[in-house]
Amino acid sequence: MSDAISPLAPKSYPKMPEVAGVRIATAEAGIKYRGRKDLLLMVFDAGTEAAGVFTRSKCPSAPVELCRQNLSGGKARALVVNSGNANAFTGSKGRQATAATAKAAAKAVGAEEGEIFLASTGVIGEPLDAGRFTHLLDGMAANAAPAGWSDAARAIMTTDTFPKMLSARVRFGDSEVVLNGIAKGAGMIAPDMATMLSFVATDAPIASHVLQDLLSKGTAGSFNSVTVDSDTSTSDSLMLFATGKAADKGAPRVEDVKDPVLVPFRRALNKMLKELALQIVRDGEGARKQVEVRVTGAKSSRSAKRVALSIANSPLVKTAVAGEDANWGRVVMAVGKAGEPADRDLLSIWFGDIRVAHNGERDPGYSEEETSEYMKRDEVVIRADLGLGRGKATVWTCDLTKEYVAINGDYRS
Amino acid sequence: MSDAISPLAPKSYPKMPEVAGVRIATAEAGIKYRGRKDLLLMVFDAGTEAAGVFTRSKCPSAPVELCRQNLSGGKARALVVNSGNANAFTGSKGRQATAATAKAAAKAVGAEEGEIFLASTGVIGEPLDAGRFTHLLDGMAANAAPAGWSDAARAIMTTDTFPKMLSARVRFGDSEVVLNGIAKGAGMIAPDMATMLSFVATDAPIASHVLQDLLSKGTAGSFNSVTVDSDTSTSDSLMLFATGKAADKGAPRVEDVKDPVLVPFRRALNKMLKELALQIVRDGEGARKQVEVRVTGAKSSRSAKRVALSIANSPLVKTAVAGEDANWGRVVMAVGKAGEPADRDLLSIWFGDIRVAHNGERDPGYSEEETSEYMKRDEVVIRADLGLGRGKATVWTCDLTKEYVAINGDYRS
Repeated sequence: MSDAISPLAPKSYPKMPEVAGVRIATAEAGIKYRGRKDLLLMVFDAGTEAAGVFTRSKCPSAPVELCRQNLSGGKARALVVNSGNANAFTGSKGRQATAATAKAAAKAVGAEEGEIFLASTGVIGEPLDAGRFTHLLDGMAANAAPAGWSDAARAIMTTDTFPKMLSARVRFGDSEVVLNGIAKGAGMIAPDMATMLSFVATDAPIASHVLQDLLSKGTAGSFNSVTVDSDTSTSDSLMLFATGKAADKGAPRVEDVKDPVLVPFRRALNKMLKELALQIVRDGEGARKQVEVRVTGAKSSRSAKRVALSIANSPLVKTAVAGEDANWGRVVMAVGKAGEPADRDLLSIWFGDIRVAHNGERDPGYSEEETSEYMKRDEVVIRADLGLGRGKATVWTCDLTKEYVAINGDYRS
Repeated sequence: MSDAISPLAPKSYPKMPEVAGVRIATAEAGIKYRGRKDLLLMVFDAGTEAAGVFTRSKCPSAPVELCRQNLSGGKARALVVNSGNANAFTGSKGRQATAATAKAAAKAVGAEEGEIFLASTGVIGEPLDAGRFTHLLDGMAANAAPAGWSDAARAIMTTDTFPKMLSARVRFGDSEVVLNGIAKGAGMIAPDMATMLSFVATDAPIASHVLQDLLSKGTAGSFNSVTVDSDTSTSDSLMLFATGKAADKGAPRVEDVKDPVLVPFRRALNKMLKELALQIVRDGEGARKQVEVRVTGAKSSRSAKRVALSIANSPLVKTAVAGEDANWGRVVMAVGKAGEPADRDLLSIWFGDIRVAHNGERDPGYSEEETSEYMKRDEVVIRADLGLGRGKATVWTCDLTKEYVAINGDYRS
C-alpha cells in the first residue's frame, strides 16, 4: 500500500451490500505488512458453486495449483487470501503451506479440504509460513459476518493505492440477485491473465459449469485486455462464487449457459469484470493516466489485439503519454514492430478525435497545439486504423512514469 | 546528445586509423540540433562493395527502403547520414527527400544514384527537409578526408551520451586489412534489428555477396541479441563496406564465403559487431548497469532466446536491477510468462556465480547479503537453467531507471 493515492482513483467507493450466503472476516496476521489487515477469509454456505480463471504462467504459484485441482469439484466453502507473500516458487514448502492452510480452513468452516480455495499475493520466492495465520482461521470463521466487503477489498492490497470493489443488482428471472466484486492489481499486470486477484460472488443459483463458461468468456474483454507492464504474474486468479441463496427469494436455478434468464446477469458480470480490470489499470504502479488503445482495420481480431498490445506495452509510447507528448511516431514504431500485417501507406492514427496521421504521413490538418492540449487529459485514447480488414480490438493500459521505476526499484527493501 | 555521460562509457576512445578508399566529411546542417555536427558524408572509391541488414519493422523509414533497393547492385560510392530527423512515416515527402539526397550525393561524388546509401535517425513523422543539407554535399565531398572517423561517430548521435567506435587490424591472407566501425543507439533498441545505426568499413577486397553473408550471420550474436526497451525502430540499419584497396598491398580478393582467408576477418568482424552492440546497451537511455542474461537447459536455442528476451525485456526485472535488488522472483515470473517449455521444479537461477534458486525453490545456501553486494556491480549476469534440454542463448540489456522515463517523456519537447 503506497502513501500517495492514484490520481485516477474513484472519487468515492460504493456501499457494498451483503451477498446472501457469504460471510467475511479479515485479520492482521503480520505476514509482511504491519498495522493493516493482510488476511481475508470468505466463508460460503453449503451449496456454493465456483469457477475460476488463472495465470497462464508456466511457473504458477502453489495456491494457483491448489485452486485448479479443487475446481474440478465445482463446490466452494471458503476462500483464504493473504497479501505480502505470493507463495510462488516455493517448491515443496509452498505445497506444505497450501495444504496446511486448506486443512485449517476446512476445519474452521466445517468443510472438505477440496472445497477450500486459496490465493496469495506479494513477494515471490520467499517461503510462506502458514503458521503465521492458520491458528487465526477458527476465530475468523466464528466471527465472519455478511458485511465486510470493503475490509476484504483492503486486505488483499499490496502496492495498490486504493481498494477496488463494485456491486450490482441484477434481474434474474422474476427475482433479483446481487453481484459483488473485489480486485487488487498494481504491477506485474498483463494478459493472460491480467488481474492479480479478483473475486466475484453472487447469490444467484447458477451451476458451476455455467459459471465457468461465463467467467472464461468474460475475461477476454476485461482482464485479458489490460496491461500495466507486460509482466504476467505467477499468481493471477479470478474466481466467481455463486451461493444460490437467491433461490429463497424465487430466483430460478440455471443449469444451461443458453438460459435466457442469464442475459442480464451476463451483461452485468461482463461490465463488472471490465470495470474491475480498468480500476487495476487506473491503479497501475505510478500511473497518472489511463490509456485506451483501439486498433481497427486489421486482418483479424487476433492480429488487431497483438498490434494493440504492442502499442500498449511499448515503453516509448507509455513514457510519451507520461510526458503528455503527442508522439504518434512512436505509435507508428509500435505498429511496425508488432510483426502483424501492416502497410505504412494505409495507416491512420488518432489521439482522441484528432487524426494525427493519415495514409502514411502526418495529417495535413495536424495541429501540435490542439493535440498537446488533448494529451493533458487523465484519459487518453490512441486509435490506429490499419486499413487492411475488419479486425478490431481494444486494450487498456496506463502511462509509464518515474514513480513506476521508484516503486519497483525499492519494492523488497 | 545528453549532458551526463553514461557511467558505463569506455574510459577512453580508440584512435581510429584510416581505411584506404574511404574519405569522411561532417557538417552542421542544423536539422534539429544546434552547435553540433549532424550530417555525415562517407565517400567510397570506385569498386567499393556493400552489404546491409535492416529493421524488420513493417513500417520502415524511407532511407531503409532506398538502401534495400540500392543494395541489389552491391556497389557503394557514398553514405549520407543525418541525425535529428528519422524521415520515417513521412510518405511521399519522405521518398522525395531520399531521392533529392541521393541525387545530390551522386552528383557530389560523381556516381550513380543507385550507389548512394542513406540513413536518418531522430524524430519519426516529421517531414525531413532535404534542402537543409543537399547544398552542402558538394563542398563536403570536395573536402572529405581519410581521417575523421571520430567526427563521424559523433555526427550520427541522437540521445547517445558517448560516441561508439572501434577499429581492428586483421590478417588477410599474407596481407593485413583494417576494419573500422561506428554505431549509435540509445533508445528504441530491440531485436530485430537491435542497432539504431552502425556502419563498418574495411579495405579488404571482398565480394558483396560474401559481405552480405558475413553480416547477416554476424548480427545473430550481436545486434540481434541486445535489447534496451523492446522497441524496434523504423530505421535500424547496419551496413558493411569493403573498398578492396588492400589489394594494392597484396591482399587477395575473396569471392567465396568458405575461403579460409576469411577466418580471422570473420572473427574480428563478429567481435566488433558484438562490441558495438554492447556499447549501445551500455549507453541505453538512462542505463546505469549492463545486464547479461544467459539461459541454458532450454528445449532449443530458439526457445532459450525467447526466455532470455522475456527476462531482458521485463520492466520488473530491469527496475529491480536498477534498484540493486536481487529479486530473483521476478526472474521466475519472466521465465514463466515467456510461454516456452519450463518446469518450475527443475529451474535454477544464478546472479553471477551465486545460485539463488534451485529445484523450484530458494537455494538453501542463499545469502541475501552476498547477493545484494553482487548487485552493486556495474555489470550483472543473470543466468537461468531450465533443466530441460541443451538449448542456450545469451542476450544483453541494461537496467530501467527513472532517467529512461525522463529522457523519453521529454524527448520531443
